[in-house]
Amino acid sequence: MRLISYSTDGAAGVGVMVDETGFVALAEAAPDLPGTMRGLLALDDGLARAADATAGKSATHDIGDVTLDAVVPDAAAIWCAALNYSAHQEEVGRGRSEYPEIFLRTNASVVGHLQPLVAPYGPGVTRYDFEGELVAIIGKGGRHIAEGDALDHVAGYAVGNEGSVRDYQRHNRQYGIGKNFNSSGSVGPWMMTSDEFGDPYAATVTTRSGGVEKQNCSIGLMLAKIEEIIAYASKGYDFQPGDMIFTGTPASLPDTVKLMEPGDTVEIEVTGLGTLVNPVIKGDPA
Amino acid sequence: MRLISYSTDGAAGVGVMVDETGFVALAEAAPDLPGTMRGLLALDDGLARAADATAGKSATHDIGDVTLDAVVPDAAAIWCAALNYSAHQEEVGRGRSEYPEIFLRTNASVVGHLQPLVAPYGPGVTRYDFEGELVAIIGKGGRHIAEGDALDHVAGYAVGNEGSVRDYQRHNRQYGIGKNFNSSGSVGPWMMTSDEFGDPYAATVTTRSGGVEKQNCSIGLMLAKIEEIIAYASKGYDFQPGDMIFTGTPASLPDTVKLMEPGDTVEIEVTGLGTLVNPVIKGDPA
Repeated sequence: MRLISYSTDGAAGVGVMVDETGFVALAEAAPDLPGTMRGLLALDDGLARAADATAGKSATHDIGDVTLDAVVPDAAAIWCAALNYSAHQEEVGRGRSEYPEIFLRTNASVVGHLQPLVAPYGPGVTRYDFEGELVAIIGKGGRHIAEGDALDHVAGYAVGNEGSVRDYQRHNRQYGIGKNFNSSGSVGPWMMTSDEFGDPYAATVTTRSGGVEKQNCSIGLMLAKIEEIIAYASKGYDFQPGDMIFTGTPASLPDTVKLMEPGDTVEIEVTGLGTLVNPVIKGDPA
Repeated sequence: MRLISYSTDGAAGVGVMVDETGFVALAEAAPDLPGTMRGLLALDDGLARAADATAGKSATHDIGDVTLDAVVPDAAAIWCAALNYSAHQEEVGRGRSEYPEIFLRTNASVVGHLQPLVAPYGPGVTRYDFEGELVAIIGKGGRHIAEGDALDHVAGYAVGNEGSVRDYQRHNRQYGIGKNFNSSGSVGPWMMTSDEFGDPYAATVTTRSGGVEKQNCSIGLMLAKIEEIIAYASKGYDFQPGDMIFTGTPASLPDTVKLMEPGDTVEIEVTGLGTLVNPVIKGDPA
């Protein structure tokens, strides 16, 4: 099952995809279910009831007629892994310790599929970069989650662009605002449930911009696996349903850079999951 | 005016303090006003209406009869400044660049006045530290806020304990989970409105634990002033009403350490604002 969060005329809802663009509005098919992805994930049987309520139904809406929000627009936390592929470590000249290196993004920093990414500009901004990666979405929350149990806490997966304003990211050791410009990242096109996606490490992430392939890497090369990130973060943080984990980006392909510029359209595909597409527009000066 | 967020029997509310412990429940005095601090701050005239509705009233409740929540329990963002006093930079042997060094905390990491701070323990945890500091709370949101306008966006101030699990904080460059253990920090005892608090840089922050004074520093020694932090972060982030900014902690006094251990009671006072008190309890192993 593939689920979206969307807005239309100021109202927000959850949809279940029927094909690549058509969906059933859950508010119509199952009005008794919570109206948000976070609320749905917080119910033990939320996804099962959404599946039952939409089984065999034809699409009632099209994603082109609504605004797609971040898969979870109001996550209690968005955790991101840094430096989680060795070729990306080499690319930026930095490694990390034996522990997953994680940091936080705000909800405001992440938009949905097809929505514009806002490129800042100005004298202090020379590099606004994409980071194509896999995103894991927590279903069942919890603290002190063992690695062996961690994937049972993942409701599904999405594709992410952990867009980064490098100049600001490098002002200090803490990434701070450099990873948190409004609408600088994205997550979508939908959440595919774990059962349908299967083994995340068998998939490949590919990023294209302007028709040029710029990243192409097996997710199996991820260093701190999703299980390890969840186990590590949950030593201190009590995961909540709807929390999102950006799992880190691979290196760029030879002779390409991750740069995003106004006018670009960035496509990030995770095999078997879908393709996240975002145009890049010129924003306010930083 | 001094305002609190509180919970009782599962319901949450906002209160206006009448004296050091008594308050008027805004839900009773002004049922037409939003029921949360964030909602109240989002109204242009929210604080003025709260003041009008409670003027001259006697206390109807006591803080001892409710659970005090973080001043804003559901902030869109909690920004924190690192290394923002030179003596603290010397203490930890690290400086920062010309830009404010900022990072994020989750709402779950911060409790209210009188609530227990949860000390993690276990083989990987040797230092769980207090950080007494001033907290600025955003009233009017915005992006690209000029330094000269920044304090107009601050609705009020509170006292904060930016409690830190040092071992985890130091696993990597990004502080990550080390600054985000659940219930490891606190903010309170209330928000005092900017007009009543006056010049933040004329105040002093003092931290006591076990009857011993461990921090005592003029807030005027803050390096990146509140105005600069707001101006800098708002280059990328669109501040929302209710966002909190932990402004950084000074050094410890000579021959003291910031360590918190189960059984301690930590008191952090900002002159003219109030004293934030939290007992420390033993939590789960990390």
